[in-house]
Amino acid sequence: MLNYNKVLSESLENWAFSEDRFEPLLLGKCESIMSLGNGYMGLRSATEESYIGEVRNLFISGTFNKFDDTEVTELPNVADVTRLDLFVDGQRFSMERGSVEEYSRSLDLRHAELVRTFIWENEDGKRMRFTFRRFVSLHQVHLIGMKLEVTPLNGDIDFTVSSGINAQLSNSGSQHFHEGEKRIFDKKYMQLNQTTTESKIDFVVHASHRFLSDGKSIKLSPVMGIERRKVAMTYTHTIRNGETFTLEKVSNIHTSRDKEHDGVYAMSTMKDKAFKELKEADELGYDALFDLHKQEWDNKWKQYEIEVDSEHAFDILAIRFAIYHLVVMTPAHDHRMGIGAKGLSGEGYKGHSFWDTEIFILPFYIYTNPEVARSLLEFRYLGLQGARQKAKENGFEGAMYPWEVAWPTDGEVTPVWGEVDVLTGLQTKIWSGFIEQHITSDIIYAVWHYYKATGDQDFMDRYGYEMVFDTATFWASRLEWDEASGQYHINEVIGPDEYKEHVDNNAFTNYMAHFNMALAIQYFDELKGTKPELLEPMSERLNLATAYQAWTDKLDRIYLPQPNEDNIVPQDDTYLELETIDLTKYKQQKKIGSLFLEYSLDQVNKLQVSKQADIMMLFFLLEDKFSPEVKKANYDYYEPKTLHDSSLSLSTHSILAGDFGENDLAYELFRKATEIDLGPNMHSSNAGIHTASIGGIWECVVMGFAGLRMLDGQLHLNPKLPKSWKKLKFPLYLQGVRMDVNLAHDSLDIVSSSEQQMELIIQGHKVVFHKEISIQL
Amino acid sequence: MLNYNKVLSESLENWAFSEDRFEPLLLGKCESIMSLGNGYMGLRSATEESYIGEVRNLFISGTFNKFDDTEVTELPNVADVTRLDLFVDGQRFSMERGSVEEYSRSLDLRHAELVRTFIWENEDGKRMRFTFRRFVSLHQVHLIGMKLEVTPLNGDIDFTVSSGINAQLSNSGSQHFHEGEKRIFDKKYMQLNQTTTESKIDFVVHASHRFLSDGKSIKLSPVMGIERRKVAMTYTHTIRNGETFTLEKVSNIHTSRDKEHDGVYAMSTMKDKAFKELKEADELGYDALFDLHKQEWDNKWKQYEIEVDSEHAFDILAIRFAIYHLVVMTPAHDHRMGIGAKGLSGEGYKGHSFWDTEIFILPFYIYTNPEVARSLLEFRYLGLQGARQKAKENGFEGAMYPWEVAWPTDGEVTPVWGEVDVLTGLQTKIWSGFIEQHITSDIIYAVWHYYKATGDQDFMDRYGYEMVFDTATFWASRLEWDEASGQYHINEVIGPDEYKEHVDNNAFTNYMAHFNMALAIQYFDELKGTKPELLEPMSERLNLATAYQAWTDKLDRIYLPQPNEDNIVPQDDTYLELETIDLTKYKQQKKIGSLFLEYSLDQVNKLQVSKQADIMMLFFLLEDKFSPEVKKANYDYYEPKTLHDSSLSLSTHSILAGDFGENDLAYELFRKATEIDLGPNMHSSNAGIHTASIGGIWECVVMGFAGLRMLDGQLHLNPKLPKSWKKLKFPLYLQGVRMDVNLAHDSLDIVSSSEQQMELIIQGHKVVFHKEISIQL
Repeated sequence: MLNYNKVLSESLENWAFSEDRFEPLLLGKCESIMSLGNGYMGLRSATEESYIGEVRNLFISGTFNKFDDTEVTELPNVADVTRLDLFVDGQRFSMERGSVEEYSRSLDLRHAELVRTFIWENEDGKRMRFTFRRFVSLHQVHLIGMKLEVTPLNGDIDFTVSSGINAQLSNSGSQHFHEGEKRIFDKKYMQLNQTTTESKIDFVVHASHRFLSDGKSIKLSPVMGIERRKVAMTYTHTIRNGETFTLEKVSNIHTSRDKEHDGVYAMSTMKDKAFKELKEADELGYDALFDLHKQEWDNKWKQYEIEVDSEHAFDILAIRFAIYHLVVMTPAHDHRMGIGAKGLSGEGYKGHSFWDTEIFILPFYIYTNPEVARSLLEFRYLGLQGARQKAKENGFEGAMYPWEVAWPTDGEVTPVWGEVDVLTGLQTKIWSGFIEQHITSDIIYAVWHYYKATGDQDFMDRYGYEMVFDTATFWASRLEWDEASGQYHINEVIGPDEYKEHVDNNAFTNYMAHFNMALAIQYFDELKGTKPELLEPMSERLNLATAYQAWTDKLDRIYLPQPNEDNIVPQDDTYLELETIDLTKYKQQKKIGSLFLEYSLDQVNKLQVSKQADIMMLFFLLEDKFSPEVKKANYDYYEPKTLHDSSLSLSTHSILAGDFGENDLAYELFRKATEIDLGPNMHSSNAGIHTASIGGIWECVVMGFAGLRMLDGQLHLNPKLPKSWKKLKFPLYLQGVRMDVNLAHDSLDIVSSSEQQMELIIQGHKVVFHKEISIQL
Repeated sequence: MLNYNKVLSESLENWAFSEDRFEPLLLGKCESIMSLGNGYMGLRSATEESYIGEVRNLFISGTFNKFDDTEVTELPNVADVTRLDLFVDGQRFSMERGSVEEYSRSLDLRHAELVRTFIWENEDGKRMRFTFRRFVSLHQVHLIGMKLEVTPLNGDIDFTVSSGINAQLSNSGSQHFHEGEKRIFDKKYMQLNQTTTESKIDFVVHASHRFLSDGKSIKLSPVMGIERRKVAMTYTHTIRNGETFTLEKVSNIHTSRDKEHDGVYAMSTMKDKAFKELKEADELGYDALFDLHKQEWDNKWKQYEIEVDSEHAFDILAIRFAIYHLVVMTPAHDHRMGIGAKGLSGEGYKGHSFWDTEIFILPFYIYTNPEVARSLLEFRYLGLQGARQKAKENGFEGAMYPWEVAWPTDGEVTPVWGEVDVLTGLQTKIWSGFIEQHITSDIIYAVWHYYKATGDQDFMDRYGYEMVFDTATFWASRLEWDEASGQYHINEVIGPDEYKEHVDNNAFTNYMAHFNMALAIQYFDELKGTKPELLEPMSERLNLATAYQAWTDKLDRIYLPQPNEDNIVPQDDTYLELETIDLTKYKQQKKIGSLFLEYSLDQVNKLQVSKQADIMMLFFLLEDKFSPEVKKANYDYYEPKTLHDSSLSLSTHSILAGDFGENDLAYELFRKATEIDLGPNMHSSNAGIHTASIGGIWECVVMGFAGLRMLDGQLHLNPKLPKSWKKLKFPLYLQGVRMDVNLAHDSLDIVSSSEQQMELIIQGHKVVFHKEISIQL
């Protein structure tokens, strides 16, 4: 039903994908993967007319609220402006009634417009064409534009549309808003206020309509309605046979959390400003507003565009899909905000940020738009307060980052109860917020990565060093002395593989903690020589003299699991001794998590079965710590035990497969990774898109197929293009310089945008060049 | 689409009404008028499968909660147990897809069972019969029983049902519950807790399923699911062609507000008890549970049944409809609870009680089940605390009853903002909570009426006198001295006609205040002689010596508007001088309130146009204060100016028309009154049934057509049967004795259930009899 190959128009080739037939069971998937946004807000693409099973969501980045003390903070679902109740000859329009022809709903990735068009024949045989268009402006981030065209094809119709601002929505039942004032100005402009219950963020939502008949403006008088949490206008018009009736609706949303209101804020000022803006937008109309939005997207594509010459047109579409969503999901405008694990496309994970950002998404920004990467890392700097709080609450020192973060200073916000335990009938306890601790070093790894790639010393001086030092202090306090081995252990954790809870010495966790502490020692030593004026006050504030002592005392005595006689690195102290079961049917599952229909998490904890890349993740991040043989042996051992029940798994496996020279497997895993959201699984994206997987698509391409890696302070390229690809072109920022990399099976061209001398390691050879270089591979 | 004449079966003749064709625009109406309940709870009859536009509601009497300080308290919408997500061959079942034959949804009033049956053909041509049954037990008030039968008619089908307890619902967006524990016992029994946010009432909801194939029990294994605010089981079964697959679901709800938990309460005790009860119910199964319920309804019909021999079968159906809903809406089990203006059938009026109870519903109970009438008046006694609080807040003395009441001690809970003002685009202010003050004397009128009809001295001693005295004290403090006329005025009020706000000397209000104070004086004088031991402590507590002085000082100087030269009693000081407009189109309106599409309430306040009976209501309650000529003149003056935009209007007009001897008009107005809920207007009952109108139907019959009236301490009967009626039989309680009244055009038979001598005034003649009397009319 989803069509990725349909050429909507020549100019949109591989720039759009469509749903070719209205399919109620695909509602959630299309709402998510076709969602619109601009980083400021995210709008789930529920259809204008409502259907059972739909989820209407509008989220504004950073506007977290907590319903009550038993819940965790989440992004509240803002008032809906997209619903249109449509009536034809007095009957509610629904595609479930009558019949539908020439149906297409498509998302144009190039210009971020959602278009739905079809001919509907109602039960009385009346036929009419509907075309719906919608965009969330990248030019004016507060704005949503909508347009509906209706043309009767075999007789006049009485057409009624009821449209307004509906704040009766909630987050799966949790209502985050106090109802505010609602009013209608000039029988045209609707205004609705709402305020979050706990965080006390004010929202003002406006909407207004314009009407055209065959392209000429007409005026209709509304029936106005104000109900509880709702304001709406109802318009009626007889559309003559062949006439095209157009409704345009513009809406905007402002909140007191917006940066522009930071500092002095008055509700009345915000309302006035927003109302003025809406009136101006209403004057301009859909087409003019859309033109401004298009220009911004053109700029974005210049910044990010990847070109691929592949036998499979789908590949380039999947990459564009990834980049589109990376733009849409990222609150690049405000360093107080992070990227949610489902972006802004659904209620899943409540808008919280995980290590997904640092490990799966940040590389995209580091290498294509370092300013945004910096903003995302500053978000983590602002989170130090919460991280210190968490460390203290858990009896540790320094900064222990929360597994899930919302508003940066809030600290840990992981919910405590999850899905049903098949044995007890109770909810399973979620331990990640307590013991999935690798997040702290993941963030530091990202700081290191960013610094290496950009050389952004200002960032390090202001934020980076402090983050590295205080997290190392956490790890030093976290280590547990093991008398028997004479080493430091890290017991009772969850590693990346979340099907192993309460394990000791998860290899990934131990190695990354070691990385974090070693980096702190290195930076401390460097700063002592080069920037004592920076180090000294920080040292005093963070008590670094004592901390440094602890780091250096403990670093070399951290237990780092080594390959055994079969070259297998034990994932943790017990994994290799656990029972194995036949996983065939779960490996072939159509829906992730099928294991839990039969096993409780407690039981799964006792089996050699993994959710996702764990040791593989370690190999990816710290690749020079292990030999190729070890990597291959571990891949062959762990992958068959891995269900890829996390969307974080396939892209990492693809990159690793490439590292072993298994290019076909790498490509196959890349394709599978793209199908997490774009594939045929009808429900996989119901709760929102998988942002780590989407970042992972870019990683597969640039870090996998082009072999980009940051190692020993140098940028490496080890290209290994899939067979079916002739060419790959992508932008690459290094030390503030943009390069455009052009890769074929036998050649590599790089064009730099600066006069600066550039240095890269290509297939193991150091290459130094100005402006441009061409290499035969 | 609604069919009131269809004979479902001989035994159900005039005992059921049906919807003959699935009509999405009728969803709200059928949900309301077919709603089920037992006074403890009310269940709106949304279909098992969901449709856009539906409203799923389950309310438990008295469990009020306030979302926040800007809202008023309301009955929260409890977790839904009725929704079934059904899938046939992998596609969601919806009557909007495929085609439907032999459709019937009917409410059996005799046994309070909702039955829906039809043949559905899906888009692949598969045909199957569905039959859904449902009841809310009158035997075990916590229990809801459901049954679904599916029989494929032309081939096997894969059938999946997902069914659970869903607490994601809210009241139009306001969430009243903290999420509580959810769990599944024995892979069968679901349990969900929720607690109201402000009133802290705990709820526990259980549900479980049983399955049968061709009547034989089968076992299916579920996929269990626990989500946010939701627990559900999914079962799949291949139904062979011709096989009847049956799903039975029993659910129960208990709350910490239940009387049985009054005093000592522990959540765990309640849960254990409720769970045990559910398991027992599950064992019994639908049919056995339904039998117990049926027996209770048989008893109710013995208590209440009215028999009519009418040319129009609809008449008896409408009366049964009224009695059915009177049973369903009334929390007869608990004197801490009142009747909501929409019963328990919708969110409208938030479960609040108005004067509707005392003036429109109480007569039914006074004369057919005085115990319930007493309970409802005790509710008002408990409300004295809130009434005193309101008086104080408004600067008065004594007890000033709230216009809207929820939990009795909460005081005034009328919301402050209403519908849109067509001129300003703002919400209109609702003044009733401040200045619609006649409610206080309406309650006292009901106390008097109850006492007169029942002679319940115990009630008066414990509650009644105190209510009468303290309200009289309120009125005495409320009166305003007018120097010019040398009289007491009551200025700045709203009378029953709510299209006239801020008026002075609303005739109804002044006369009823006078009635209230006069009654206090009378009772005080009586008690002084007969029961000084009762009066003295009360006198001390309520400072009655001073109060009595005020009552007697002021009573005779209250301004009571008199008929003018045209025999017209001015509704208030200014009404007769206001502008008149042509009301033709509004009198012919299809939907009430059409005036407000063009006029704001401010403008309507300045026109001679009325919402409802006002002077007519005065004539009905205090009929011996005015001559028949005056009544007729006023009817002819005011009725043409009355839009009957309130459901409280038509029944009163019907009774009045009967009083003038306009029997045909009385009957016509009765028919119109029955159509408020049962008529063709598709949206009239969306927010719930009209309980005052439903009480009014009984009033039309017994107080109108049989001419029952309490006057000068005597019960009068002035029969005036409609032409089309041959016979009317109804029960009548007087002084604790049940009589059965059998009325024809030329005869009246009364059978008493007691040996006691009964005294009645029939057509003006005093009649005294034992056991039985027959009179030729």
